[in-house]
Amino acid sequence: MQSQATPADIEGVCAKIVALGFKPHIIPGEQRTAIGITGNPGPIDPAEFESLPGVADAIRVSKAYKLVSRETKREDTVVRVNGVPVGGERIVLCGGPCAVESREQILESARAVKAGGGELLRGGAYKPRTSPYSFQGLGEQGLRYLAEARAETGLGVVTEAVDIESFDLVESYADCVQIGARNMQNFSLLRRAGRSRKPILLKRGMSSTLEEFLMAAEYILAEGNYNVILCERGVRTFADHTRNTLDLSVVPAVQSLSHLPIIVDPSHGTGKRDKVIPMALASIAAGAKGLIVEVHPTPDRALSDGYQSLDPQQFAVLAEECYALADLLASRRRVPLAVD
Amino acid sequence: MQSQATPADIEGVCAKIVALGFKPHIIPGEQRTAIGITGNPGPIDPAEFESLPGVADAIRVSKAYKLVSRETKREDTVVRVNGVPVGGERIVLCGGPCAVESREQILESARAVKAGGGELLRGGAYKPRTSPYSFQGLGEQGLRYLAEARAETGLGVVTEAVDIESFDLVESYADCVQIGARNMQNFSLLRRAGRSRKPILLKRGMSSTLEEFLMAAEYILAEGNYNVILCERGVRTFADHTRNTLDLSVVPAVQSLSHLPIIVDPSHGTGKRDKVIPMALASIAAGAKGLIVEVHPTPDRALSDGYQSLDPQQFAVLAEECYALADLLASRRRVPLAVD
Amino acid sequence: MQSQATPADIEGVCAKIVALGFKPHIIPGEQRTAIGITGNPGPIDPAEFESLPGVADAIRVSKAYKLVSRETKREDTVVRVNGVPVGGERIVLCGGPCAVESREQILESARAVKAGGGELLRGGAYKPRTSPYSFQGLGEQGLRYLAEARAETGLGVVTEAVDIESFDLVESYADCVQIGARNMQNFSLLRRAGRSRKPILLKRGMSSTLEEFLMAAEYILAEGNYNVILCERGVRTFADHTRNTLDLSVVPAVQSLSHLPIIVDPSHGTGKRDKVIPMALASIAAGAKGLIVEVHPTPDRALSDGYQSLDPQQFAVLAEECYALADLLASRRRVPLAVD
Amino acid sequence: MQSQATPADIEGVCAKIVALGFKPHIIPGEQRTAIGITGNPGPIDPAEFESLPGVADAIRVSKAYKLVSRETKREDTVVRVNGVPVGGERIVLCGGPCAVESREQILESARAVKAGGGELLRGGAYKPRTSPYSFQGLGEQGLRYLAEARAETGLGVVTEAVDIESFDLVESYADCVQIGARNMQNFSLLRRAGRSRKPILLKRGMSSTLEEFLMAAEYILAEGNYNVILCERGVRTFADHTRNTLDLSVVPAVQSLSHLPIIVDPSHGTGKRDKVIPMALASIAAGAKGLIVEVHPTPDRALSDGYQSLDPQQFAVLAEECYALADLLASRRRVPLAVD
Repeated sequence: MQSQATPADIEGVCAKIVALGFKPHIIPGEQRTAIGITGNPGPIDPAEFESLPGVADAIRVSKAYKLVSRETKREDTVVRVNGVPVGGERIVLCGGPCAVESREQILESARAVKAGGGELLRGGAYKPRTSPYSFQGLGEQGLRYLAEARAETGLGVVTEAVDIESFDLVESYADCVQIGARNMQNFSLLRRAGRSRKPILLKRGMSSTLEEFLMAAEYILAEGNYNVILCERGVRTFADHTRNTLDLSVVPAVQSLSHLPIIVDPSHGTGKRDKVIPMALASIAAGAKGLIVEVHPTPDRALSDGYQSLDPQQFAVLAEECYALADLLASRRRVPLAVD
Repeated sequence: MQSQATPADIEGVCAKIVALGFKPHIIPGEQRTAIGITGNPGPIDPAEFESLPGVADAIRVSKAYKLVSRETKREDTVVRVNGVPVGGERIVLCGGPCAVESREQILESARAVKAGGGELLRGGAYKPRTSPYSFQGLGEQGLRYLAEARAETGLGVVTEAVDIESFDLVESYADCVQIGARNMQNFSLLRRAGRSRKPILLKRGMSSTLEEFLMAAEYILAEGNYNVILCERGVRTFADHTRNTLDLSVVPAVQSLSHLPIIVDPSHGTGKRDKVIPMALASIAAGAKGLIVEVHPTPDRALSDGYQSLDPQQFAVLAEECYALADLLASRRRVPLAVD
Repeated sequence: MQSQATPADIEGVCAKIVALGFKPHIIPGEQRTAIGITGNPGPIDPAEFESLPGVADAIRVSKAYKLVSRETKREDTVVRVNGVPVGGERIVLCGGPCAVESREQILESARAVKAGGGELLRGGAYKPRTSPYSFQGLGEQGLRYLAEARAETGLGVVTEAVDIESFDLVESYADCVQIGARNMQNFSLLRRAGRSRKPILLKRGMSSTLEEFLMAAEYILAEGNYNVILCERGVRTFADHTRNTLDLSVVPAVQSLSHLPIIVDPSHGTGKRDKVIPMALASIAAGAKGLIVEVHPTPDRALSDGYQSLDPQQFAVLAEECYALADLLASRRRVPLAVD
Repeated sequence: MQSQATPADIEGVCAKIVALGFKPHIIPGEQRTAIGITGNPGPIDPAEFESLPGVADAIRVSKAYKLVSRETKREDTVVRVNGVPVGGERIVLCGGPCAVESREQILESARAVKAGGGELLRGGAYKPRTSPYSFQGLGEQGLRYLAEARAETGLGVVTEAVDIESFDLVESYADCVQIGARNMQNFSLLRRAGRSRKPILLKRGMSSTLEEFLMAAEYILAEGNYNVILCERGVRTFADHTRNTLDLSVVPAVQSLSHLPIIVDPSHGTGKRDKVIPMALASIAAGAKGLIVEVHPTPDRALSDGYQSLDPQQFAVLAEECYALADLLASRRRVPLAVD
């Protein structure tokens, strides 16, 4: 739509789409609103829409993913999590423990994240664990502790929903619901996320191609939830010096194909504490819009993933360095970086 | 337990386990019954059980997976699907289309599988698809067609449950419920499968290690369902001459670590019709207990995966060759093949 | 060329090729001779050759590899190693230690291979080792021991050349020169192998695609040596239950694209002794023309790769089982297996 | 050795090593000289050396690689290429075409690199090509053009040796000899490089683990050449949005294990022009000591790799951005970044 398009113009286009038997998707942007169409069995003639009032352009999306495509919406999507814009000018840092272990532990973590300069708090109340005999999370109790941490620190809460049964509960407490790597192609869960009113953080699967990653996001948008943040967290390869191989090139690749913001998880992406800060910096330099990092008050006593968690002081160093780097990059943004 | 252990002996052991606050798992075998213990926070002294009546041996399982381990149960598990034993002396062939597309299509497929010598029918009524806009299956209608095909041909039905919402329905129609590769670490679904009374066919995830694969099965057994069939279906690598890289060495590897039967899917494992028969033969030679193969009456008109589906005549060739190979191998079984 | 083409016909075609400024390659077959053309900067009109005497057909090869393509030569190439045909009706077993360690060791190995039913002897006199401080092979002394083992047992000798400096020496002793996986894209070494009169065993590189594998063979043929045996030996993936992931689907894939014979190395392909026999059988079932297997008189005392070597008795079991399987497959060859 | 150790002290230690029958390696550093020992069949008692004059410490190296280990030499190695220090405080940019194609092309490239702010010139006179029919480089003519470009611009020349035959020639023209990814385990070539007096740029193999990478460098150092620069250039994975997957986490991983400098090749690492600048920045942020980048006066007319080459203006942008980033990082070096 044109930037000066009126609500009536938008309504008009949607009415036309509905009249044709298809589904309209109003994806608002800072400057202009994009309207996606799904449900059409074959191509539609752009001329059907080009002359409607307020329409700037009607484009046939050439990719298998439609609503996530930059062809559908040219400008970057900014997702607000508890008021914090993800995908805009500033980078966003989300920190916290792998799992919520106790009231004290999550409160201390939240204070550390806040003090270090983070804006969002992570922490799993429901944990997908390889073994049925491992700690599976505190469940709703964990969610309550997260809410308490938010109340005290003001940090927005990002926490994972591992299945549809727990989604309602997670959604009711969280500011942003995470879909983990193992669930990236759990299509029922993606559809449920698509019907949520909360933003979704979608992690890339361990052996997911870029196209599969974007198609997973498409599942969410196709149900009407356009607030999706993508997250690279490492893929599985033969390399054994890190737990996963962090594929940072997916950051500019996503940005050229999609309007959705992408952040990076250097904790799972490396699995080693001493690689987290270098790879955090590399992520920001590659263009990531933020980071999600494991922070624990006492990493050596963590119930899970302690070896990849930063302590509060290390997180503060990470944040300070990353903000300095982001400032530098922002100050030079006049120069066009993507060269093709 | 000793082979001559009485029900009372078994009950006695279980009572003791319960008294200690743990969970007993009675895993029946052809010769002897094994009793697994879970729920113990740390190691238990084997002496607690060794002197109980009917106990042959009390073993501490050294692996992260407990109930699936061959340490827990030495003899092969045989899973019966609609009366067909999977994991015993004979190999089992399961054939059918990727998706149930229509009544005619599934009936024709079933007749072809039956005529070709197959004993089980596959076909998805619920399909996990990379794109939200692809055909997602006929749902319950598809399940009804499968039941009709079973009624006509006598073939047992293997069909996939993609989420917990549809599990009850799938379970009520199927003789064996498939958990697909993308859901191998959908732990809620695995737990639901563990509470089912139907056998489960668990496919290896695309980038799953052997340990993760066995741990996924452990989720099912830990809930009390000991009838699990494992299935290798190819893993994701750089190699591009096949859709996935069929990792047949996982067959003997599973067999040395676990008592559960393993079969192979050469259709997804190669993604190319002309590789299916050679890899089917290779699977049997490697020791697989059966195959699950895509068969379609008219592969070129299939709604999904047609390029990797066999036509009825090709399936008949596959079956004839595989049975001949299996007969040869069975006739030579006196020779111990595993050499370590 | 037609099957009844005369030497004069062949000469005529070659003369024409030379006259055009290109390079002719006479690749003899059991039934018919193929003549490949290289050195042409662009496509040549087939009509230039179609009317020459003795020409059956002039085909433009559509692949990047030309001389190895089945388009160039339709019938299977049979490579003779010390008189043993590799690529014909019968499978060929090559056994022996990773490295020649001593006169006694290689003689005992050779006797074991011979007694077990093998026809070729493997053993490295020059070893490519990851560490500069590991045992690098006995060099020419090792070659002399191999020659002695051949003299005593009649087994043909397959041994590796690791560089051009040692190629002359290796070539002078060996019946077949092996190019190892690490050298699959050592193009100078490939060119040297192409100027050799001895057959070449070319192993697939650890992360080589099928096309790269065939292009490596093309380097050898392009220099005039058409006696190349390909060998699958496992590729590098995330899977950790075997040392490498044996990619058996490359066997039928090579066979549909190339006339060159392909064999399998289940020892390096699995890296574990107890997986060797199952994967050897799987290789034969997939259509491999032979196997190259590590055999050591006393595997536990081997200087390298002992954990994946068979002892003499295990090799005899492997050979007996594989021959029985190959006999079965040969007896059923009336049935066309590749179905597309 | 102590920082105030005299040449006589060093000589004394070496004499002792030689007297014991081992090989001494004098590896000079900015502050202190390290002396490595190889050739010992088993561990040596550190006490043998601790009391010798000038000795600061005698350490048993725990890794399979010895001379490249940071245990042997604690401070960073700085390698001088045509006077340019690689591995020190400043980052170094090396640019130039994939292959030297003509006098004009390489001179223009060199001028562009110089003007853009680069200090080293890359360009292959000998090219390892997948196909025997592709352009294989201009050979010595190409080397002469490179020398001419150096004479005009003052840029140091980095160029590849693909085999031992051409090594002497390459070495005589180059300021730094490159060993390519395909040759990372060409051990004869590594040994030859170890006997060279020119610095060596060693690229990581396509499926090389970190340990194999360091062991390949060890081959060079073991022969007496301690001037080795490591280079990450992407590894082979299933991911298909880039030509290779750039594994930047290897940068901090190398730096914690080895004293050798590591740089990154974002051109091969991504294979796509528009990903080069983001990944170049990410590399510097991860701690890389420099970059090697493909630059071509007219990328669209390049004989090889044009789609991943930058044009002169793009290279100037890359250089400006990378230097600005490196300045920022250097200015903050007070903060300890590695946190473990």
